[in-house]
Amino acid sequence: MDSGSDEATRVAAQEDTMLKVPKGTRDYAPAETRVRQKVIDIAVKHYQRHGAVTYDTPVFEMRSLLQKEDQYGEETKLIYNLEDQGGEEYSLRYDLTVPLARYVGMNKLGEFKRYHVAKVYRRDQPAMARGRYREFYQCDFDYVGQSGLMIADSECMKIMDDIFLELDLGEFLNKVNHKVLLNGILEVCQVPADKFKTVCSSIDKLDKQPWAEVREELVKVKSIPEEAVDALHGFITLRAERPELSNAQILDTILERSSGNANIAKGVSELQTLLEYCTAYGISERISIDPSLARGLDYYTGVIFEMVITKSSFENAGPAEDGNAKKGKNKKGDKEDSNVGSVAAGGRYDGLVKSISKFDAPCVGFSLGIERIFRLVQRRDEARGLKERDTDTEVYVAVSGRKEFKDLFLQRMAICTKLWSADIKTEYAYKQKPKLLNQLQYCEQSGITTMIIIGEDEVARGVVKLRDVSSRAEEEIPVDDVVTKVLERLGRK
Amino acid sequence: MDSGSDEATRVAAQEDTMLKVPKGTRDYAPAETRVRQKVIDIAVKHYQRHGAVTYDTPVFEMRSLLQKEDQYGEETKLIYNLEDQGGEEYSLRYDLTVPLARYVGMNKLGEFKRYHVAKVYRRDQPAMARGRYREFYQCDFDYVGQSGLMIADSECMKIMDDIFLELDLGEFLNKVNHKVLLNGILEVCQVPADKFKTVCSSIDKLDKQPWAEVREELVKVKSIPEEAVDALHGFITLRAERPELSNAQILDTILERSSGNANIAKGVSELQTLLEYCTAYGISERISIDPSLARGLDYYTGVIFEMVITKSSFENAGPAEDGNAKKGKNKKGDKEDSNVGSVAAGGRYDGLVKSISKFDAPCVGFSLGIERIFRLVQRRDEARGLKERDTDTEVYVAVSGRKEFKDLFLQRMAICTKLWSADIKTEYAYKQKPKLLNQLQYCEQSGITTMIIIGEDEVARGVVKLRDVSSRAEEEIPVDDVVTKVLERLGRK
Repeated sequence: MDSGSDEATRVAAQEDTMLKVPKGTRDYAPAETRVRQKVIDIAVKHYQRHGAVTYDTPVFEMRSLLQKEDQYGEETKLIYNLEDQGGEEYSLRYDLTVPLARYVGMNKLGEFKRYHVAKVYRRDQPAMARGRYREFYQCDFDYVGQSGLMIADSECMKIMDDIFLELDLGEFLNKVNHKVLLNGILEVCQVPADKFKTVCSSIDKLDKQPWAEVREELVKVKSIPEEAVDALHGFITLRAERPELSNAQILDTILERSSGNANIAKGVSELQTLLEYCTAYGISERISIDPSLARGLDYYTGVIFEMVITKSSFENAGPAEDGNAKKGKNKKGDKEDSNVGSVAAGGRYDGLVKSISKFDAPCVGFSLGIERIFRLVQRRDEARGLKERDTDTEVYVAVSGRKEFKDLFLQRMAICTKLWSADIKTEYAYKQKPKLLNQLQYCEQSGITTMIIIGEDEVARGVVKLRDVSSRAEEEIPVDDVVTKVLERLGRK
Repeated sequence: MDSGSDEATRVAAQEDTMLKVPKGTRDYAPAETRVRQKVIDIAVKHYQRHGAVTYDTPVFEMRSLLQKEDQYGEETKLIYNLEDQGGEEYSLRYDLTVPLARYVGMNKLGEFKRYHVAKVYRRDQPAMARGRYREFYQCDFDYVGQSGLMIADSECMKIMDDIFLELDLGEFLNKVNHKVLLNGILEVCQVPADKFKTVCSSIDKLDKQPWAEVREELVKVKSIPEEAVDALHGFITLRAERPELSNAQILDTILERSSGNANIAKGVSELQTLLEYCTAYGISERISIDPSLARGLDYYTGVIFEMVITKSSFENAGPAEDGNAKKGKNKKGDKEDSNVGSVAAGGRYDGLVKSISKFDAPCVGFSLGIERIFRLVQRRDEARGLKERDTDTEVYVAVSGRKEFKDLFLQRMAICTKLWSADIKTEYAYKQKPKLLNQLQYCEQSGITTMIIIGEDEVARGVVKLRDVSSRAEEEIPVDDVVTKVLERLGRK
């Protein structure tokens, strides 16, 4: 075309604005996508093992649902809106929990045990090096409906435990607290009732900040009386300061100091029931009652829990640390880095469905920190020298010969067709006359263990060479035996 | 709370705007989600069998990429934009092909065989009853890179053939044409060169409109000379009017009438090669060379193909028809209804990557009409009386006893834990004292075949009842044998 160079200039100028992904998002190449899929497959297997179903909801929701007062509080500003192109106003989903509540309310579901793996969107300041993106996966399990006291709650913890045992990221603990117990403690410490929420958000920082800093914030910034703050200290540092106490003893100690507070009594009693069930499930040694766990989210009404990796299975030092942190690049406010031990969290939230619909249903569930888990799995595999393949291709059908040899496409296709029919993952070179060396190298790079090699000579004699890629051993077999011999080699027959 | 009734009024008023999904989108309940997943799994299995990898790209792209001149032509107006919230401008992806070209251009991939299953977004007039939604899945296979003539192209057709054989929706044909051949035909018929595009878009309607209507449009609306239109008729109705001709004969006939046109010669020769490879792949009897196939998309440069169901496997009359159509509700302009036979399409598009980047790479691929396939599979299963379960739960651990019986939660949990450990999908009632009848009914409704029933008597004696849900046969077994006996029943040991 005669405007070719103009066109080229225009394309080059456009490249800068077109050939990139939106800020805070990224592409995932095949090998990384496979690692991620394997992690998701583990979670889904356990969800399904417990009878959970899955469903599908739109990636955008009514804007009025997501931006409803108190739905996400200050984080409302992080919601992506769709442009008003005439009609209704929409926003990209911010999590998978509000869409669940919307679905339950719309369909008036009295009982719904579901998992959901999908992307959510937050216009947060991206921190790519630490894996914080604006588009990321969530992988949630929730049970909506009535259940005996702590029954669905303890099954959540059983599922979390099973998932992290299988993920093999290291030793872990599921830290547990109870919103009612926490309220009781705040009452006993005479924290003013209108300060509960803000005090909880300070307490929530205790796993990243020392008590002295949190105390200063409570007293100076939030104007909590010093006596209240010091009384609180006695409760919420109980787990950290008395590591020798069993979970039951922690609860007993709180109860002893409760001055007969009804909320403490209720919270302790419910957690005692939970511990009993965790014992029946065989997971109690990885449960840690911890009165300092507050969980930022306002909507929790009962038990709350947070899974932390306490000892990595692939690094020498304590909890898993972020790559940047190790390199000394950890900055102040790098909340995620110092807290990378937290890999899943959840709790009971009985009021959410009612807050958006005439229908009411109690809920309990958890969300895996799946993006964080992806990164830990990658680092573990790196530490172990494991490299993910792009594909599962089992067999490569190669062609060889001198310069003037025929392409043998028809013969290669016929062999591939036989192998595909036997459900054997097979590739062959699309080039007319590929070099044998290139085909061998492709197999080595791609982790393909078995080659079928044909040349004019083999075709004439009705045979093929069956080659082991790593040992380079070859044997000649009749072309009619290809499927049988390959299945044998793959250990599938 | 004292503002309870105010709150209730407010919630009720909000419900109308919050408790719904955006226009043209929908939720998919668990059973339907499972049907859809099974279809996707079949496609993915075949893609992987041929060595294709997958990847992940963001759901929104740079607006400049999607709204680039000539990217989507008139359909640009159907693109969803994200609101400008400060920063760059984004739009929801419209298909999976442009993101592929962007990825290939950014990463300068010389070779990339990938599949991608993901949602795309089109602000089209929704037609819910016909399954046309604004958010829908695509399920694409594409090969980017050099290949011997028709090599990657014929493998695409092999994969399509394998998928539709396994989907079992009925008899099908892959209609094939070639863009260069079509251009040659237009040249020979003396259609003005600047009218090729608009003539093709008229020809593309031939599977839904009779020739007379298309002819009128060409002559009256598009001002094509009558002689040109009639000459064209002789070529493009060749397949419809000479069903007795083999594919090779169709090509020969076109060649005979080509007056030595170079494009026709090239197109015919390439399609002859394609037919040869289709024979090697064993799929040639389901290939139909059809000069009337034009495919709307402008970017095709070589072979184009479209898979149609010619005889449904589950309905008596001809091609699969839409539910509404059968009820006589088919309206004028109901393009999809009359064309529901088309279930996949694709072709070679060698210029796309170059059009957006300095990098160049030839491409060939296809997109399954996966939403249409979902609906056909559902209707087939309905016709066959198959009902999809919500879960794969295998065993239900039930409790029975008199009114004053204990909940036996600990015992139920212990049994479930054993079964879960053996990878047996197991549920139990979350209620404290569920009625046995309700538990039995739940199993029947959910398709659970096996029950373990315990009561105080069984617990005292260290046994459980193993019950076959459909035959209602029960046997008593030691509680320690639960896993072994259940695995036996499930045929897994």
